[in-house]
Amino acid sequence: MSPWKPARPGDPVAAIDTPALVLDLDAFERNLRRMAQALAGSGVRLRAHAKSHKCPEIARLQMAHGAVGICCQKVGEAAVFVDAGIPDVLVTNQVVGEAKVRRLAQLARRARIGVLADHPEQVRAYAAAARAAGAELDVYVEVDVGAGRCGVAPGEEAVRLALQIADSAPLRFAGLQCYHGPAQHLRQPHERQAAIASATALARATRDAIVARGLEVPRITGAGTGTFVHERDSGVFDELQAGSYVFLDADYGANEAGAGDVAFEHALFVRTAVLSHATPTRAVVDAGLKASSVDSGLPRVWQRPGLRYVKAADEHGTLAVDEGTTVALGETLLLVPGHCDPTVNLYDDLVCIRGDVVEAVWPIAARGALL
Amino acid sequence: MSPWKPARPGDPVAAIDTPALVLDLDAFERNLRRMAQALAGSGVRLRAHAKSHKCPEIARLQMAHGAVGICCQKVGEAAVFVDAGIPDVLVTNQVVGEAKVRRLAQLARRARIGVLADHPEQVRAYAAAARAAGAELDVYVEVDVGAGRCGVAPGEEAVRLALQIADSAPLRFAGLQCYHGPAQHLRQPHERQAAIASATALARATRDAIVARGLEVPRITGAGTGTFVHERDSGVFDELQAGSYVFLDADYGANEAGAGDVAFEHALFVRTAVLSHATPTRAVVDAGLKASSVDSGLPRVWQRPGLRYVKAADEHGTLAVDEGTTVALGETLLLVPGHCDPTVNLYDDLVCIRGDVVEAVWPIAARGALL
Repeated sequence: MSPWKPARPGDPVAAIDTPALVLDLDAFERNLRRMAQALAGSGVRLRAHAKSHKCPEIARLQMAHGAVGICCQKVGEAAVFVDAGIPDVLVTNQVVGEAKVRRLAQLARRARIGVLADHPEQVRAYAAAARAAGAELDVYVEVDVGAGRCGVAPGEEAVRLALQIADSAPLRFAGLQCYHGPAQHLRQPHERQAAIASATALARATRDAIVARGLEVPRITGAGTGTFVHERDSGVFDELQAGSYVFLDADYGANEAGAGDVAFEHALFVRTAVLSHATPTRAVVDAGLKASSVDSGLPRVWQRPGLRYVKAADEHGTLAVDEGTTVALGETLLLVPGHCDPTVNLYDDLVCIRGDVVEAVWPIAARGALL
Repeated sequence: MSPWKPARPGDPVAAIDTPALVLDLDAFERNLRRMAQALAGSGVRLRAHAKSHKCPEIARLQMAHGAVGICCQKVGEAAVFVDAGIPDVLVTNQVVGEAKVRRLAQLARRARIGVLADHPEQVRAYAAAARAAGAELDVYVEVDVGAGRCGVAPGEEAVRLALQIADSAPLRFAGLQCYHGPAQHLRQPHERQAAIASATALARATRDAIVARGLEVPRITGAGTGTFVHERDSGVFDELQAGSYVFLDADYGANEAGAGDVAFEHALFVRTAVLSHATPTRAVVDAGLKASSVDSGLPRVWQRPGLRYVKAADEHGTLAVDEGTTVALGETLLLVPGHCDPTVNLYDDLVCIRGDVVEAVWPIAARGALL
């Protein structure tokens, strides 16, 4: 890892070394409040997704703003958050492999832990590990409600798996995972609404089929930053798994807002400096692929007209400089990352600023927790 | 970081946890020898690029196979390698910002350190920092020989900068950086050859223009894994900066080989496991965007016909399963990453295997060294 930190609390923002991952605390806190307000009185709870931030300080603030727990994607992430005192973690993923399942069950001795299943073999492995650990595990059936990735088909296949879980003490059948990932970035509001209407219908029908077999469905969970208002209003979903709302990356920022959508604002930036400006039409910054993930598009230059980020190499970002725009060597800029989750995963530290001052440096404690 | 390691020395390969970054030591060592053989007797030296591997153990083996030193892109990377005992490091980048330049100059008290310039301001800053540190610095003029990123124009602009460096003790004018990045991945051999012929002509003309002003040009450095045979044979280049040759990623593997090219082999893999297989035509593995960078294309499934990696999400990779191919839940696969450099940067450890046994686990010590 880097032998140096990009900043220390109390530093002026101008002194932050580059490239650094920067959180604008005022904007971030407004995003936390906007989510809390959007869910107030709805009867639907937030279970914030921590894969976006991997940072225990943020998880604690989400809990303080009403989240009932967090989601993770990896057992290693879950361990970091349990170690940090988060009492309720759902691993929104299938966990496969003897070592991982054993570790998952051991975590369940220290916190409430949930996990997904979409195959009978997983349920058998979870049950054996939970018994060996002397722990209870919440197990959700993942239903493919349109994402086309993991998950059993809605209806009878989900019913069979739910019944298997309910019969596999010390597992608890906890409900249905009905996440529609691709719907999050449909650009038009009516497209997102239609996708979630369809997902909701499949979730409802599956729930009803399970209830008809005499088994209660404690909760239905899903949703992300792009669609959560629809799951909130569905009458079917109980918990929402939005994560990116705390940061708002460029990809989410490119969604067209619908009438009922919540206006989050960009709070996460890559601070970068111009290291080369050898021709008038081109400048090169010190933030490339290893400083801002480009899987969902290039980063956008923030509030600096006349500059566009046009190409990323490992450690270089090339900016096109419009005619009439001047740039200074060493000048610092902010970039809005294309995709927050894999960008956060590149950094050890989140430099938290308020106004012109660095207020805190938060460890990204679950960075690289791949197992 | 991950609370657990994916493997320990002595473990069977079958016990490596997933996802893990795996180095096939036999293939890797063959690649080291192939490069040494390709340069033997040429009078051209390897200065291996360590941005690809960020791993001191690999740098030491490159030196043992004849490399005269290494390249880095960041001062923080250089510090990791100097700390590890590498005596000669060239930062193939412009370094801008008071803290970074000061650290660079301080490193130059402990090792031979080089750096690039493409602007007079950088030269003034390097000189002031070197004087303050009581250190000497090798400074190269970066010349844009076709890459269109950093670098002054060939000819008179480079001459002026070289003369400025030579007049700025304790800086040493060390030569010309003439790297043609985009040429590395031109798919056809004749395209790569033509691009380097053009770069060579520009490098030669610039060198001759500097020599005509009475200044020696100690060395001309550049090249990468895709083109180094042409720089080797150019009669102009003295040092070669190939890095990816130790691993050979899928993007380099997609280059058509020319008559004189050296056949490196894939030595770097992401070991991954199937975590979901809910439909016959689809399987999902535990290596997504945070386990294999997709900026240069998706990873390729290695030696497992009938499976194709078709989509990456944060923590999921979706495989298309051909008709007639069977896959088991929990089955492990190897992926060849699309782009080795940013993929290596996602991991803390490199699991080194020989045959069926884990021989070593090498820290990727400069992972995340962004500053």
